[in-house]
Amino acid sequence: MRTPPENAQLALLLEVTATPKPGNVDRHRDYPDLRFEHFVAGAVGAAEGLRLAAGCPDEGVGADEGVGGDEDERVDVGIGAAFERAVAGMSQQRGGNTQFGALLTIVPLVRAASRGELSPEGAQAVVEGTTVADAADVYRAFEHVDVTVRDLPEGMDAPDVRHGGDAVPALEERGLSLSDVMAEAAPVDGVAAEWTRGFPRTFEAARWLVDGDESVPVPDRTARAFLRLLAERVDTFVIDQHDESTAREATRRARAALDGEEDPEALAEEFVDRDINPGTTADLTAGALFVALERGLTV
Amino acid sequence: MRTPPENAQLALLLEVTATPKPGNVDRHRDYPDLRFEHFVAGAVGAAEGLRLAAGCPDEGVGADEGVGGDEDERVDVGIGAAFERAVAGMSQQRGGNTQFGALLTIVPLVRAASRGELSPEGAQAVVEGTTVADAADVYRAFEHVDVTVRDLPEGMDAPDVRHGGDAVPALEERGLSLSDVMAEAAPVDGVAAEWTRGFPRTFEAARWLVDGDESVPVPDRTARAFLRLLAERVDTFVIDQHDESTAREATRRARAALDGEEDPEALAEEFVDRDINPGTTADLTAGALFVALERGLTV
Repeated sequence: MRTPPENAQLALLLEVTATPKPGNVDRHRDYPDLRFEHFVAGAVGAAEGLRLAAGCPDEGVGADEGVGGDEDERVDVGIGAAFERAVAGMSQQRGGNTQFGALLTIVPLVRAASRGELSPEGAQAVVEGTTVADAADVYRAFEHVDVTVRDLPEGMDAPDVRHGGDAVPALEERGLSLSDVMAEAAPVDGVAAEWTRGFPRTFEAARWLVDGDESVPVPDRTARAFLRLLAERVDTFVIDQHDESTAREATRRARAALDGEEDPEALAEEFVDRDINPGTTADLTAGALFVALERGLTV
Repeated sequence: MRTPPENAQLALLLEVTATPKPGNVDRHRDYPDLRFEHFVAGAVGAAEGLRLAAGCPDEGVGADEGVGGDEDERVDVGIGAAFERAVAGMSQQRGGNTQFGALLTIVPLVRAASRGELSPEGAQAVVEGTTVADAADVYRAFEHVDVTVRDLPEGMDAPDVRHGGDAVPALEERGLSLSDVMAEAAPVDGVAAEWTRGFPRTFEAARWLVDGDESVPVPDRTARAFLRLLAERVDTFVIDQHDESTAREATRRARAALDGEEDPEALAEEFVDRDINPGTTADLTAGALFVALERGLTV
């Protein structure tokens, strides 16, 4: 039996393994400076943060942070701090941002699973329990890697995430919890949108994986789930990277690939060549894999 | 900075990623019932045992095995027990034996690294410190997966590993430590041979990786190191699987691939088709990656 942090790590690894996922690094495709092995190293480095997300004590060699072996002494670290640690570990490779969005999707789900409440309601409860300190830690996490983001819409309370830790005083002054920040980002960020609604697309894609044909290898089922997610909603990362029209094209062509009107392999080649990277869809795919593994998907 | 157990896990993952490795599962090749994702799940499942190999306390959720947070209370578990735990975790996937030999190579090196003595002498000291209890745990590990082995030569003291835990009374009666068992197996097993001599081939291949061209991705350097190892010595697993003559062919053709006389990709296809799997060479490659990562190889 794998623990929730182990399933979370496996989800990250299976996500990058699944092929073809048009526009993303996968078992058969790299970008020149963002390669498969960077994702592998990212998943290894993220493990400690994922254990913190589950409320496991930090057990690094020589750790002396006062974490006792007595279970009663355990204090859950905030999920913002767990996320920040996961991102710090993930970034120990030369590819840059590999799994920032995937970790932002998975960390609250790991916390829900560790409470025995891996459901839309359980995830919602984790989100609603977030604090200003969690928001501050997530802002600090942006300092570890270069994350492509858009300007928030006019009139928002939340400071620009690109300010990293410098934005913390503003967060504190305005009393913004992580769930407040996510609610503001939801219209322009597909992961934040999941946070505000109990992760509906993540849980739905998990069902596709669990209910899929047992004789089809999990990476193949995952690649199909990726296409279905992309076909049903524009990818906000493609909007950040390019524009709305490119994002709409990606969604239209994913649908054509599902309908057998396009070859998914050729689409994967073309999107990598054109640097059209539906990364938010990959983030939700990783989240769906985590939920599916927790619900008994066998590899 | 990754810890030794993290580098060990990354080594397992980079080993299976490296392609082409003729006859082995890699980023581009599967066997029908032994697939890339089985190795990925194996590496995730092995992590807890690898942490035990480094002397880290077991921090599974709900663990109540009396491991205290106070460093002075820590007692290293034996490397046999750590190995057995790693194999038990590795086997939680449907492919069967993915990394038994790789873990047998890596576990003593993780212990040496955790003592700050990752050198042939340090590894030798770990081997010499093994006990009958370590041997018993390694025998028990054979019960978790179906491992291809040969009959030991006539007149050996060590019982057949295929007896698993049932062999423990014989081990105890004869007072055989794990290093005694490995010394007996050394003539017919390439991993055991490393155990008895301070892991010379593992450390040498690590040098190739560390000294390699920085502009060449680590998986490509790894695939070349695999070919070099195979070209210089017959693979004992191929002998177990087939016979001496097939193992000699594999070595001869690896040399031809290195010399540019054979296409390594075509060789990889052919060996998978013929089920010629130089698995011991892959085990040493994983060990070499671990040593190289500890010595600063960056991914």
